[in-house]
Amino acid sequence: MTPPPRYEVIGIQGIGEVRRGDDIAALIVEAAARQSTPVLAADLLVIGQKIVSKAEGRVVKLGDVTPSPIAIAMAPALGKEPPLVEVILRESRRVVRMAQGVIITETHHGWVCANAGVDQSNVDADTVALLPEDSDRSARQVRDRVRVLAGVDVRVIITDTFGRPWREGLTNIAIGVAGFAPLRSYLGERDPAGRPLQATILALADELAGAAEPVMGKLDRIPAAIVRGLTLSAAEEGSKPLVREPARDLFR
Amino acid sequence: MTPPPRYEVIGIQGIGEVRRGDDIAALIVEAAARQSTPVLAADLLVIGQKIVSKAEGRVVKLGDVTPSPIAIAMAPALGKEPPLVEVILRESRRVVRMAQGVIITETHHGWVCANAGVDQSNVDADTVALLPEDSDRSARQVRDRVRVLAGVDVRVIITDTFGRPWREGLTNIAIGVAGFAPLRSYLGERDPAGRPLQATILALADELAGAAEPVMGKLDRIPAAIVRGLTLSAAEEGSKPLVREPARDLFR
Repeated sequence: MTPPPRYEVIGIQGIGEVRRGDDIAALIVEAAARQSTPVLAADLLVIGQKIVSKAEGRVVKLGDVTPSPIAIAMAPALGKEPPLVEVILRESRRVVRMAQGVIITETHHGWVCANAGVDQSNVDADTVALLPEDSDRSARQVRDRVRVLAGVDVRVIITDTFGRPWREGLTNIAIGVAGFAPLRSYLGERDPAGRPLQATILALADELAGAAEPVMGKLDRIPAAIVRGLTLSAAEEGSKPLVREPARDLFR
Repeated sequence: MTPPPRYEVIGIQGIGEVRRGDDIAALIVEAAARQSTPVLAADLLVIGQKIVSKAEGRVVKLGDVTPSPIAIAMAPALGKEPPLVEVILRESRRVVRMAQGVIITETHHGWVCANAGVDQSNVDADTVALLPEDSDRSARQVRDRVRVLAGVDVRVIITDTFGRPWREGLTNIAIGVAGFAPLRSYLGERDPAGRPLQATILALADELAGAAEPVMGKLDRIPAAIVRGLTLSAAEEGSKPLVREPARDLFR
């Protein structure tokens, strides 16, 4: 009997507070080694967006933001301060829904999420974190640096926590990908009865981002995880295949 | 240094073709033992909906279905045979969207998904599988049977593969839960700066259903997986906390 498919998810402790200019890859490689789970070839590193944004200086002090009249007008219905609404609108190219105190927008990257991904937790008081400017680039940079620092080729996901319609609770999804194909396609494959498979394209990168979340404590400062043991299809297409084109989207 | 949080995901091979009346729990316990990864106390079993539906007889021969005039009228725009449209509509209590050849409905359980979860792959030709009538009951039954058969208390997820707006690719999500709380709440918790956490409620059961998908091959007949090593909050509330109430939903 062939051994069963299996993989492991390991949280990386001890990364500590991240500041602008920090080398995320080095912090991860060193912290993983300290806890006796060094980064190995073919590992997938899942990294929370927050530490990437901090290292890249993608944080904004709300006191420095002058809200536009539009942000001031929208703020009461959202129950948010005008400078925060201003930052959210600047990060967006379209408002998808604004109701019940919630604003869901399409970011300049094409992601649809609440508050354009602008987040107030786990950053300094009066400061908010934006999504990385280009999370695929961030993921590639980590991958390249790990190759230099540890001599191994890894795959990388930059993850954030998004909500979704119809279901309660947030899940971690992939906003940046390096080194593997984020979608796994069964197109053209057939079931044992010879019929085309119906669930044909799986969002593997989103599933693996979600798989890392249970070991990535929001309170105990575990901003990254190793996913070890899966064979992923090599690809350099980044996360863009995960963005549904507006023309194909029934809910935008 | 405390050991890092970690867990493992193991596919269960050799379950074989499932027929009406089969004892899913026994098939899983026996197959896991045969591959030398016996089911252990506190394991989470993630089980694909398809084998549950087959065991419960939730399959329909399309040749036995007389389509209503409504199903006949809707069929051309959906590119589906009228009997299949009839089955989808019978499984639904509301149509959420019908466009671009896609029909998204709210099932009698409250799940919003394409085709009311009715699936044509991996069942006999001319036959479709429906979602289990009550997947929480199905999950509880597996949990109870595993306690009898293997003498261990496990947690159970019944999973299906759903699409979502805005993002390409499907992911596995939880439609039935037994033994643990499907949502993990950080409400009332604060970040190190003392600010309330923004991403406060995580859909843990959906993330773990997704975590199991990469080892649950659609082609190589691995319809279940063990998730081992996580501490989950005991609860008997089933999957219902994952259903967003229509009044709180901006996309229904």
